[in-house]
Amino acid sequence: MKIKKEVTIYDLAKELNYSPSTISRALNNHKSISKKTVKRIKEAAEEMGYRPNNLAAGLRNNKSNTIGVLISRINRPFVSSLISGIEKTARKAGYNVLISQSNDKYQSEINNSNALYDSRISGLIVSLSMETIDMEHFEKFMENGIPIVFVDRVPSNFNSYKVVIDNYTAGYSATKHLIEQGCKRIAHFAGAKHRNVYLERKKGYLDALREHGLPIEDKLVVNFKTLSFDEGTKATEKLLKMANPPDGIFAANDTTGVSAIMCAKKLGVKVPDQLAVIGFNDDPISSIVQPPLSTVSHPASKMGAISAKRILEHSAQSYDADLSEITVLGTEIIARGSSLRTVKS
Amino acid sequence: MKIKKEVTIYDLAKELNYSPSTISRALNNHKSISKKTVKRIKEAAEEMGYRPNNLAAGLRNNKSNTIGVLISRINRPFVSSLISGIEKTARKAGYNVLISQSNDKYQSEINNSNALYDSRISGLIVSLSMETIDMEHFEKFMENGIPIVFVDRVPSNFNSYKVVIDNYTAGYSATKHLIEQGCKRIAHFAGAKHRNVYLERKKGYLDALREHGLPIEDKLVVNFKTLSFDEGTKATEKLLKMANPPDGIFAANDTTGVSAIMCAKKLGVKVPDQLAVIGFNDDPISSIVQPPLSTVSHPASKMGAISAKRILEHSAQSYDADLSEITVLGTEIIARGSSLRTVKS
Repeated sequence: MKIKKEVTIYDLAKELNYSPSTISRALNNHKSISKKTVKRIKEAAEEMGYRPNNLAAGLRNNKSNTIGVLISRINRPFVSSLISGIEKTARKAGYNVLISQSNDKYQSEINNSNALYDSRISGLIVSLSMETIDMEHFEKFMENGIPIVFVDRVPSNFNSYKVVIDNYTAGYSATKHLIEQGCKRIAHFAGAKHRNVYLERKKGYLDALREHGLPIEDKLVVNFKTLSFDEGTKATEKLLKMANPPDGIFAANDTTGVSAIMCAKKLGVKVPDQLAVIGFNDDPISSIVQPPLSTVSHPASKMGAISAKRILEHSAQSYDADLSEITVLGTEIIARGSSLRTVKS
Repeated sequence: MKIKKEVTIYDLAKELNYSPSTISRALNNHKSISKKTVKRIKEAAEEMGYRPNNLAAGLRNNKSNTIGVLISRINRPFVSSLISGIEKTARKAGYNVLISQSNDKYQSEINNSNALYDSRISGLIVSLSMETIDMEHFEKFMENGIPIVFVDRVPSNFNSYKVVIDNYTAGYSATKHLIEQGCKRIAHFAGAKHRNVYLERKKGYLDALREHGLPIEDKLVVNFKTLSFDEGTKATEKLLKMANPPDGIFAANDTTGVSAIMCAKKLGVKVPDQLAVIGFNDDPISSIVQPPLSTVSHPASKMGAISAKRILEHSAQSYDADLSEITVLGTEIIARGSSLRTVKS
């Protein structure tokens, strides 16, 4: 029994003297290819009997009913709520979810994105690693019509679907809350500068200080690598041993917020009277530490649900690679014992 | 250009009048197929020009350099340490890791195992869901020469590689620790009975009581569904409102151990003097709660590393589906403020 060998994009590339990537882009109506070239390639493809569901493309376009998730670290309550939102929406539509974590490493993010690509996923949901700047590893998804939704930590230099919270307003409100409790010298625990979430929170912090006539001091803004508990302890120790220590800390996550409370208690600094602290995320530990940590709550599960919906509703026809479609969600300040002063100064 | 169509196991099945699954098992030397049948099928396969690297099997046997991980819930520190151990070992060998969570649901475990199977993983590492009893969804991995390592929550009715801790000794030692602190009426928060880890911990608890001449009371053994914080709070409230409340609790995880401490404090019961508590896992929350929770530490990352090594070193030749190869690791009691009494009664 004999069958005719399928025509591939490689055959088309050879015949037409284009790169396989150009052929692929043209067949998928990618904006980077001129309409004239698209027309020429599509005509040749039809002539040569190219079928988009040949072996290679077939495997690729084959509905695997799987959504790939590429996140920084699974051991963050924010991340597990996000994934739980993705899974609930995916499951209802009969889709499975495969997860991989970059551990905030650029190279791991590349390797994992390749593994998910090879798994023939129907779409990819990404929260970028702390290190990632270059976005080239995501291009082949776009070129092959696999939708990508960036969530929470999103790129500024790559057009796609994006789902974020309003980090600027959240940072502004958290800082304003400390000011309202009487804080005069407010420190900030900041994350990686090139990640939108941390940059925006810091902008909100700085604007809140400016608008309330409070001083902005470089020494009071601590730039963190990974916002870990140990980093938080070291930063708090350094701040509290200053000649003129801060009386408030806005931490960009709860892990470092909790470490600040525990370090202050160990050094005999009273929370919230001598040091008011507010974190970010409303992780479970924020309710367990004494006094409980004030924080900013995140609609993580909802962000996951919206991201999965974007993948499920994606249609190649309506997709325009020249623009980003961004969904922005609000946050809420949760005031607890770590910042609520009974007698305001 | 023409190519000859490859002979598949389906062609062999039709020709020889066996099921495709029998053909596949025979070609993989599965123990369930008689030597005579294996010989007959292999001879026919050779005659018909069957090559194991034909399309379907090729995709299957194709080294994807990916290890699949199927776990209950990613939002447990034990699970993230386990995965981190798997990833470190995998990465060194140039392998990626794809994760999926069952959320302790049997049906999700089946769906996820199918998604991972379709992703052409080189091997599967599984920690069973709370609900799983039937193991049929794992058979196709074995039949196709894809090694499975069960870790922590392992089956008793399925032969494979297994990596566990000595849960019996851990449960015995945790209970003995409470007895040494003077506890006379010790309650136990137990997990699902059909999951080895919880069953063994409970056996250790019961034997420790027996050997020290302490009473075993059904009312003091609380069977949990998922060992969640809320379940722990409700169970503690019920126990502490008994006419003759317990003076010690051995909780099968830290989440319910922490909930016991917080509930006791709210009810005005002094920890550890009126109620000593020990948990299991050494999760980060165990150090954050006041007083800090005594616990049993788990070599989770090492268990992950050993599991990944099993996959990487697996060779179909040396594999015997009639036996399980089990690695058992030790644990350690970490005594903290929630159980260490200054004056022993």
